[in-house]
Amino acid sequence: MPSISIKGLHMPESPIRKLVPFAENAKKRGTKVYHLNIGQPDIKTPQIALDAVKNNTIETLSYARSEGSEEYRTKLANYYANHNINVTPDNLIVTTGGSEALLFTIGSITDAGDEIIIPEPFYANYNGFSTASGVTVVPVISKIEDNFALPKIEDFEKLITKNTKAILICNPGNPTGYMYSKEELQKLKEIVLKHDLFLIADEVYREFAYDGLEHTSIMAIEGLEENAIVIDSVSKRYSMCGARIGCIVSKNEAFIATAIKFAQARLSPPTYALIASEAALDTPQSYFDDVKAEYVERRNTLVSELQKIEGVKVANPKGAFYCVAELPVNDTDDFAKWMLESYNYNNETVMVAPASGFYSTEGEGKNQIRMAYVLKKEDLIKSVEILKNALATYRA
Amino acid sequence: MPSISIKGLHMPESPIRKLVPFAENAKKRGTKVYHLNIGQPDIKTPQIALDAVKNNTIETLSYARSEGSEEYRTKLANYYANHNINVTPDNLIVTTGGSEALLFTIGSITDAGDEIIIPEPFYANYNGFSTASGVTVVPVISKIEDNFALPKIEDFEKLITKNTKAILICNPGNPTGYMYSKEELQKLKEIVLKHDLFLIADEVYREFAYDGLEHTSIMAIEGLEENAIVIDSVSKRYSMCGARIGCIVSKNEAFIATAIKFAQARLSPPTYALIASEAALDTPQSYFDDVKAEYVERRNTLVSELQKIEGVKVANPKGAFYCVAELPVNDTDDFAKWMLESYNYNNETVMVAPASGFYSTEGEGKNQIRMAYVLKKEDLIKSVEILKNALATYRA
Ligand SMILES: Cc1ncc(COP(=O)(O)O)c(C=O)c1O
Ligand SMILES: Cc1ncc(COP(=O)(O)O)c(C=O)c1O
Repeated sequence: MPSISIKGLHMPESPIRKLVPFAENAKKRGTKVYHLNIGQPDIKTPQIALDAVKNNTIETLSYARSEGSEEYRTKLANYYANHNINVTPDNLIVTTGGSEALLFTIGSITDAGDEIIIPEPFYANYNGFSTASGVTVVPVISKIEDNFALPKIEDFEKLITKNTKAILICNPGNPTGYMYSKEELQKLKEIVLKHDLFLIADEVYREFAYDGLEHTSIMAIEGLEENAIVIDSVSKRYSMCGARIGCIVSKNEAFIATAIKFAQARLSPPTYALIASEAALDTPQSYFDDVKAEYVERRNTLVSELQKIEGVKVANPKGAFYCVAELPVNDTDDFAKWMLESYNYNNETVMVAPASGFYSTEGEGKNQIRMAYVLKKEDLIKSVEILKNALATYRA
Repeated sequence: MPSISIKGLHMPESPIRKLVPFAENAKKRGTKVYHLNIGQPDIKTPQIALDAVKNNTIETLSYARSEGSEEYRTKLANYYANHNINVTPDNLIVTTGGSEALLFTIGSITDAGDEIIIPEPFYANYNGFSTASGVTVVPVISKIEDNFALPKIEDFEKLITKNTKAILICNPGNPTGYMYSKEELQKLKEIVLKHDLFLIADEVYREFAYDGLEHTSIMAIEGLEENAIVIDSVSKRYSMCGARIGCIVSKNEAFIATAIKFAQARLSPPTYALIASEAALDTPQSYFDDVKAEYVERRNTLVSELQKIEGVKVANPKGAFYCVAELPVNDTDDFAKWMLESYNYNNETVMVAPASGFYSTEGEGKNQIRMAYVLKKEDLIKSVEILKNALATYRA
């Protein structure tokens, strides 16, 4: 029998998806499952985007331009200008989700054996894209006690080798909800300039910044022009995860020219989704205000309910829509599975993401979970009640 | 300045896209350009697929299941059964175009430094996907004199090394239009079983088989279950290239389990396109009959018109919608560019794909071009007339 590749064998299984069969079984038994495990919001997509697709007049569904049409990139550049990011359409490559933006970026700047430094816990699929490219993720730990602030500069510098190609941050962070300050970004600038590295910032949660905090893009930092690469996506911004449109933003011409070759090989981003994404750019500000207010309420609810449970420690998220909590158990992989497999509270249970999948350091995060506050307030309150009772039963 | 990866530097530029700026300039000068350069048909997408998207009732555009919904894969399995390919939904992974199916497949079975043997000329982007995975394409030449039939078995065996992981064929072939016979596929079976290789068949042009020839899928060959991987796509079948839905088909469970991990990392195929693709499965047979009749007429027109030009040699395509022709010039890269840059015939010109990009052996195909017969008959006649006059002027 022909053999699977080594990298294929090493491809991590998604920490979330591996619990899916257990959730399905729970549902088959008639147990209602509250899904706090994935970043799939229940928020409605802007009507203007949905309508644009419904009203399309396509007769032949053709390939779009590999890097996205001039028109869409021009409008996108305008969106960025409104967010203090001054770019031209030529600084942009439209991708099939932020996922593909990550893949093209890693492909353009790394070869097999290279390394990327990432503060952990981090978005689990960074592992997958790195493995697919034969690249090693070098984690630098950020701590729940510090609310997941940027690790010390020395911690980064200790890890830099001749194979290091980039530092990758997620801002606001999934799973931490952490928002990097201007000062922290300035520190990262110093490191990447000193060591000639790329700084990749995954800013797909840009709009989800709370408590009056303003999101700072690495594209807005002077002197980082040749080093900064931003990963973007319409998935969360417009609650249109299923569209599959993202974007690479960079002023480094050699990088963009390279990433475009990756884009050309796969021919085209999805055409219907481009229609939706272009229309979505005209979403009124009131939509974002409403969504933000909704998420702030959800976050406040989730965090305050969790804090009421003895032994639970919560980092206070300032952005995105995730929250990492430490539970009084030794192994959240086991606990999360148990909640689906063997537990119910009035015929209901909760699905959470064990945090170990968001760490690449073996053994880290074993007593943490990530919850996505993508459900409405009442459901969050119920979910935490279930969690609380589950913890009591599990520990007994 | 941080450095681009070696593989990024080596990523080939698409042989077609590199002429695009010259075509754009020609248009700016008011010259009409006939596009025979890409496989973007002018055929209408089935109405049933277009309507399904227009009538969708989505409110929140959500992620789809990474490997495609149970429902769509069940219907797809049914489609395959009707094409003599007996598979279950579990043998299928829905991808973002055939392009992504190729990427996941190569990622799942190769590591950097591995080799894939491909009869050349071949679909140019095989180069791109291989380079992106750090894999070397080992070409085995097929000749225009033989109508691009399968090279001799000895030619393959000579090229097999310990790093060889797979043989990749395209059937029917882009750019050759060649249809492999059952006997040829049997020969490939012998080699891959003997040397424990995967046999990948890109069958995205399955429906485009002419002259009463029946397409044989490698999935229909007994004894190949563990070795066969089929690449598929809705792009050409339903003239919906912009949808970006494809499929991996294989009975090798270890391979499918690995490829699913790649699919999970990128989360989801595009949701609108899934709606269109699922609906398209109900396209009436009359659609395919009409399309096939149209392509046969186009092919006959193109080939017979080309044969009238002195010094032009044409391989007779039996499937797909491309045709490779040898021209009486030394360098079709130069000629194709010249037709766009410096030539017009009554203010019209033709864009063709220089064939060198479809070979990975340096220097091969320099006097060949690929033409896609994706335009209507009258336009094809005009295009060849322009080509004929261009050849006369260019050679003078
Ligand atoms: C931090 C982060 N980056 C990127 C992505 C990829 O999203 P998409 O491919 O839908 O744009 C996600 C999705 O959850 C994410 O959380
Ligand atoms: C032989 C072959 N394979 C794969 C593809 C990829 O097509 P898509 O990604 O649109 O499915 C093409 C597109 O032209 C092709 O010609």
